Amino acid sequence: MESFANRYESKGKTFEPNAGHNNNTELLDHRSLGRNLGMMQQYKFFGSASFSQIQRSPLFSSLNSEDVSYFKEILGDKNVIEDEERLETANTDWMHKYKGSSKLMLLPKNTEEVSQILKYCDSRSLAVVPQGGNTGLVGGSVPVFDEVIINLSLMNKVLAFDEVSGILVCEAGCILENLATFLDTKGFIMPLDLGAKGSCHIGGNVSTNAGGLRLIRYGSLHGTVLGVEAVTANGNVLDMLGTLRKDNTGSEGSLGIVTKVSILTPPKLSSVNVAFIACNDYLSCQKILVEAKKNLGEILSAFEFLDNSSMDLVLNHLDGVRNPISSSDNFYILIETTGSDETHDREKLEAFLLKSLEKGLVSDGVIAQDINQASSFWRLREGITEALQKTGAFYKYDLSLPVEEIYNLVNDLRERLGDLANVMGYGHLGDGNLHLNISIAEYNEKVLGLIEPFVYEWTSKHRGSISAEHGLGVMKAEEIFYSKSPETVALMASIKKLLDPKGILNPYKVLPHSAFSP
Amino acid sequence: MESFANRYESKGKTFEPNAGHNNNTELLDHRSLGRNLGMMQQYKFFGSASFSQIQRSPLFSSLNSEDVSYFKEILGDKNVIEDEERLETANTDWMHKYKGSSKLMLLPKNTEEVSQILKYCDSRSLAVVPQGGNTGLVGGSVPVFDEVIINLSLMNKVLAFDEVSGILVCEAGCILENLATFLDTKGFIMPLDLGAKGSCHIGGNVSTNAGGLRLIRYGSLHGTVLGVEAVTANGNVLDMLGTLRKDNTGSEGSLGIVTKVSILTPPKLSSVNVAFIACNDYLSCQKILVEAKKNLGEILSAFEFLDNSSMDLVLNHLDGVRNPISSSDNFYILIETTGSDETHDREKLEAFLLKSLEKGLVSDGVIAQDINQASSFWRLREGITEALQKTGAFYKYDLSLPVEEIYNLVNDLRERLGDLANVMGYGHLGDGNLHLNISIAEYNEKVLGLIEPFVYEWTSKHRGSISAEHGLGVMKAEEIFYSKSPETVALMASIKKLLDPKGILNPYKVLPHSAFSP
Repeated sequence: MESFANRYESKGKTFEPNAGHNNNTELLDHRSLGRNLGMMQQYKFFGSASFSQIQRSPLFSSLNSEDVSYFKEILGDKNVIEDEERLETANTDWMHKYKGSSKLMLLPKNTEEVSQILKYCDSRSLAVVPQGGNTGLVGGSVPVFDEVIINLSLMNKVLAFDEVSGILVCEAGCILENLATFLDTKGFIMPLDLGAKGSCHIGGNVSTNAGGLRLIRYGSLHGTVLGVEAVTANGNVLDMLGTLRKDNTGSEGSLGIVTKVSILTPPKLSSVNVAFIACNDYLSCQKILVEAKKNLGEILSAFEFLDNSSMDLVLNHLDGVRNPISSSDNFYILIETTGSDETHDREKLEAFLLKSLEKGLVSDGVIAQDINQASSFWRLREGITEALQKTGAFYKYDLSLPVEEIYNLVNDLRERLGDLANVMGYGHLGDGNLHLNISIAEYNEKVLGLIEPFVYEWTSKHRGSISAEHGLGVMKAEEIFYSKSPETVALMASIKKLLDPKGILNPYKVLPHSAFSP
Repeated sequence: MESFANRYESKGKTFEPNAGHNNNTELLDHRSLGRNLGMMQQYKFFGSASFSQIQRSPLFSSLNSEDVSYFKEILGDKNVIEDEERLETANTDWMHKYKGSSKLMLLPKNTEEVSQILKYCDSRSLAVVPQGGNTGLVGGSVPVFDEVIINLSLMNKVLAFDEVSGILVCEAGCILENLATFLDTKGFIMPLDLGAKGSCHIGGNVSTNAGGLRLIRYGSLHGTVLGVEAVTANGNVLDMLGTLRKDNTGSEGSLGIVTKVSILTPPKLSSVNVAFIACNDYLSCQKILVEAKKNLGEILSAFEFLDNSSMDLVLNHLDGVRNPISSSDNFYILIETTGSDETHDREKLEAFLLKSLEKGLVSDGVIAQDINQASSFWRLREGITEALQKTGAFYKYDLSLPVEEIYNLVNDLRERLGDLANVMGYGHLGDGNLHLNISIAEYNEKVLGLIEPFVYEWTSKHRGSISAEHGLGVMKAEEIFYSKSPETVALMASIKKLLDPKGILNPYKVLPHSAFSP
């Protein structure tokens, strides 16, 4: 067995310290990505068997020229978008899986304008869809039919930052990575990080309660978001900024539009280390997690796993990547530590890996010697979604399960599908969050019928959640009962009805059609 | 300047490792404490100028013998309490500041019984007050008039614990300290800790979104509580356990009764260190906080401050305490670190203190050499409330403010009151949370008139919260507008009305009377 250190030579990539562990090549604009890959196929709902049942609600009005004139009056001509090309992009999700037919996108510049837009739309029964970076994975951020798109990208100002408390107050349209860059200059970091950071908006992160890569260390947005300002369907502005309580996250734009966010940011610590290790069986992965939480405790900042199918996918489809472990194995784990003392942290990480080797939990492992190596390790984990897009068609599930059950689902589905498709498992093991991907040459209703509702039923049976961090959106609105009891869904629907009586806010999403039936 | 180490000799107290930093003498049953101190004075609302305006709602029925018979039928005779002495205790808050006149306390054994009780009370328009350990500080857990008390102390079972994920599922009536003791055997800790842990229930902690001593490290319950089961006013059971989203904390029993809780617990780390330091001015306290967050980063687990008035109070009123700093100063800070490596942690803490001394931020400091010393340092901070009770009368405020403003309020109030009362400031500086205490020989309406609404107005003006972690209860229900906008209060009221149309759940609390007026 070689030593952990110095096994991986630098590949000479540049690495922006303020961009966390992503290098620049990963900061894709997802919206352009799909087009580059030639994926602008004709629209169909491929993600779920039940979409064809959705009908446009006859209760909503259709847009007319008077509406457009009104919006131009309050927003100015240039922020009322009717241009076909721009609408095409805004109507399409970045996977090119969901596509709406909105004829209008509005770009408000401030909360007052959001309020005026909603007040008008509510009075006219015009349905709307709030849109941030449009990086969602469940069709939550694009119109289903002709909803008016309210895009918050012009509301992108940092309003305040307190260096004593680390509290950041900003507008909802701030791009996550821009906030990270801003904070870096102050010696702080954002408490969340995710692959889409180059495009996604903090407002979208908050209203979907996004998870991501740092959750194991800094917890969910439920804990770090301290307050929001939001506008409800009737145009009322709810100023809950600066309070200690967060009231409406996770509503995915269906209860109100988040316009400002107050969030607690952790100080930036000087020492970041990344290890990449291989192990033979899933039980060992679990044991390594338990040991890492105890022995790396306070410095553990990520614990991500991928199986060998995911590794092969990345190695086969992305340029310039390689497996840092010389001999391939069944599972790989990426461990990141973040702390204030480089010597202490490396000592802890090396001792931990040595102990894991001695116990036979780990078959091999390397510690990144510099930021370029660290970045190349992260590339293997974060490149999976990009590689997946090159395979043809794919189905993506985002499940929360008891850690010990996670890989049983992958095995069961693999057995069920046999040679029909390639099943891959990876994700945030430290948070019990599996990303289950199925790649296939082209979309196929028969295969989809084998996957769904099997995956949902399996997850429900093991008391998991079918929406760990991606949300429900349009993809899983009808499947909510797999994760939530009828009483809970009824409560959610009655709160929705209270806040948005006409149902104009992001319709057809989050809640099933039946929740609103008499 | 002496060295930090070895300055404080052990006082031979026993210290339970599994009880965190409290020693046993601090684990008081608060309900008996007041009585021991001879504080069973005749009931008055002393806390706020507006209580005398509260009238019993004519919409509620009065309890009759048929009601009692029904409850005995479903709960069994022994869990339907009419005994005067037991009711006296349950009607009185532990400060002996609030007192109701309930004639009945119910002790359900499971969720189904809670559901049956509420369904019946709702149909009969009988008002209820949910009660846990009755350790609240704002009169939220005692009846205001004759509400039926629903005490959850029999629902005290741990239901599941997963050693891989650290997720604990338990009934709402579990005492916080018992959970901590249980977790200690598994190598985990509770993510919150507070002075009342020997009595308070986890259900009460969750429904008030309790803060406490570990918030700076593990975040608020908004982040760590993963799910709840709750019963709404009509008896509906909402099973939201095991989901990744937490929906109804902070409602203080006014939206439903929490019956089960799922909570993420951090692993227990082996090394705990406590330092006690003195500094001359409040600006230095702030600078020390910023430095501690950067240099102790990942191991910082508490940052508490007290002013010299608070220190004098404790030294004068509690037995067996002493100031570990030989020369007195204007401010004291307690810093706790928790990590996985004793050598690394002490190295970091000592380097940090040395640096702070060199920079002139700290005038003197000591590091506890063993668990007894650590306990004695904590005793100075945690003993303040107990010492306060021996002064005669007191007014307590719990405010959230920008850190730089915190002590300006103490100074401004001190100037305003002059010789009339003793003003003390202490609290969770790391979380921007001031506990403002005013002690006085006896309750005095004139002094109260000088304190309120001054304190609320001052806090509101500086965009603080008048309820950082104690809740609103009956004490501050009418003052909610100092922290929340009319639109937010209206939204809270409409959600309350949706979930509890007759308003039977914990009436007269959290929301102002006006919120329900036409």
